[in-house]
Amino acid sequence: MGPHPAVADVRRAVRECLGDLPEGALVLVACSGGADSLALAAATGFVAPRMGLRAGLVTVDHGLQEGSAERARKVAALAPRLGLDPAEVCTVTVGRAGGPEAAAREARYAALAATADRLGAAAVLLGHTLDDQAETVLLRLARGSGTRSLAGMAPVSGRYRRPLLGLRRRRTAEACAALGLDPWEDPHNADPAYARVRVRRFALPALEEALGPGVAEALARTARLCADDADALDAWAERAWARARAEGERALADVGGPAPGAGCPGGEPGAVAVSVRALAAEPPAVRRRVIKRAAEASGARPAALAAVHIAEVERLVTGWRGQGRVALPGGVGVVRRYGTLIFASNVT
Amino acid sequence: MGPHPAVADVRRAVRECLGDLPEGALVLVACSGGADSLALAAATGFVAPRMGLRAGLVTVDHGLQEGSAERARKVAALAPRLGLDPAEVCTVTVGRAGGPEAAAREARYAALAATADRLGAAAVLLGHTLDDQAETVLLRLARGSGTRSLAGMAPVSGRYRRPLLGLRRRRTAEACAALGLDPWEDPHNADPAYARVRVRRFALPALEEALGPGVAEALARTARLCADDADALDAWAERAWARARAEGERALADVGGPAPGAGCPGGEPGAVAVSVRALAAEPPAVRRRVIKRAAEASGARPAALAAVHIAEVERLVTGWRGQGRVALPGGVGVVRRYGTLIFASNVT
Repeated sequence: MGPHPAVADVRRAVRECLGDLPEGALVLVACSGGADSLALAAATGFVAPRMGLRAGLVTVDHGLQEGSAERARKVAALAPRLGLDPAEVCTVTVGRAGGPEAAAREARYAALAATADRLGAAAVLLGHTLDDQAETVLLRLARGSGTRSLAGMAPVSGRYRRPLLGLRRRRTAEACAALGLDPWEDPHNADPAYARVRVRRFALPALEEALGPGVAEALARTARLCADDADALDAWAERAWARARAEGERALADVGGPAPGAGCPGGEPGAVAVSVRALAAEPPAVRRRVIKRAAEASGARPAALAAVHIAEVERLVTGWRGQGRVALPGGVGVVRRYGTLIFASNVT
Repeated sequence: MGPHPAVADVRRAVRECLGDLPEGALVLVACSGGADSLALAAATGFVAPRMGLRAGLVTVDHGLQEGSAERARKVAALAPRLGLDPAEVCTVTVGRAGGPEAAAREARYAALAATADRLGAAAVLLGHTLDDQAETVLLRLARGSGTRSLAGMAPVSGRYRRPLLGLRRRRTAEACAALGLDPWEDPHNADPAYARVRVRRFALPALEEALGPGVAEALARTARLCADDADALDAWAERAWARARAEGERALADVGGPAPGAGCPGGEPGAVAVSVRALAAEPPAVRRRVIKRAAEASGARPAALAAVHIAEVERLVTGWRGQGRVALPGGVGVVRRYGTLIFASNVT
């Protein structure tokens, strides 16, 4: 008799995800003890040795809840039974920057990265499921920030891999039950103080009620399509940005280099000139991506750079009526001069 | 004293939308008598003559509700008061194809197109608001069909224009109230048998509850960004499709043209050959768009062509292990031969 279908599903997902790793490589499973990452850990402990890989477990103690150290210890203690070795507990200190969820996430990823470095892991597996992806897409939708944002979480990002993005959350719970594993239920996952919990408990069910079943799957499919579209547009923008910069520098050289007082990017580090002609030749979606790259290369603060800033710079190209300097966050200014847009912090 | 702010908002939106039309052109407002299109009609009747344009009204009697003929007559009778001339009532017969909403929409647009042709209208204005756009994006999300789909309704599409896509629905109701106009409330707009009504009444409020205010605006912003991204990718795919076809034809010519029994697209109308090398060189988002174009050019049924079909054709390029013919809806087949994909209905 084969394994329970849910167990087979999780194992298959892990197997497909690890096919490219070299013999003997170490794979770490990031495991909170919740159903998703516990099912992932069990599947990896089964699959990895059969693929000639080593598999270990790492669990993070955020120190935010009563008994978290004890729980982390228990999760790590499961490792031998799951076929995982080594098993590590990372204790982290969560700061406050960006709110509680963001601060915990940052501390967690820093600990995972340090552990992966120390152990020489080729991949770190994360237990995010299709449901997590659907929630992420809805959360991103609320920001209205476009294709890359709607792409949600990447299946592979550096050494992080998410084998379960195609599986429903209930499958991981079924897999745990079939294996006799008792997942931990994080009380945060039921706390409506978190936007993600509100999306899970209220918004997604309301959408399913309105639109019929299959909404989570459709959101996950949307994420995959948007990821491919964003990748293609980023590749295009990267080429357009190189061209626009090369043309911009030629245009400045042709006029013998502007006077420094006129906002010359001359010797200033980070100053950038991009050709107006080259920007005008691109479609809006690519033009705006190139402007974003130019702004960031010249020192504008990425996190504070909003669509309104990009749009105002774009009007120097598409709605030119002799406007003056456009101010960007981080003290960077943009002016149109000599057939180029000059991005620099001392430009006037 | 100026007009009520809501009236001013609607007029400004109409003015910005009509700026490119030549002196003396005729603009038709499609008006159901509901708040959105009534506010639009009033604003157009005010704005158009001041811009040197003529403005008329057209209302469609779908014949689906008790008293619809009488209501259509009443809407048309408002036209002189709104400054609109001519005013036309189009009576249509709604079929059944594609469900009641799709059939009514098709009959309506056919009538609008015929009336615009007959009267020589340069533009037909539609009253869709930001709320309609947000609902459309959510409805499309449930299909999981990607960037073009998430772009929602286009602000301009052929002669149709939607000046109010940036305004909330409540603004049009306020504008009608300020002008003493009494909008008709279509009972269909409150009938939860329609997916759009369920989205409006249940799903969007639940999303706002979970994610905070501004969800409708964020969805409309998502639509605008996705429209630009889809336009750029379509332009890229169009160029890639021309290249891949030219290269594919050269590759077939180089082998002296395949034998007809081997699935030669020789004299067959609609048969298409695209270069495998050219397809492999494009990123997945562009490759799939080119495959879609090739499939449609060779006679595959666009409405039945699904992501799974495109993915199976793609595997002839990216996962080639000697597979045979891939079948597409509409009786079209695809085979890989002579360094090309051959799309043709007689291919084996």
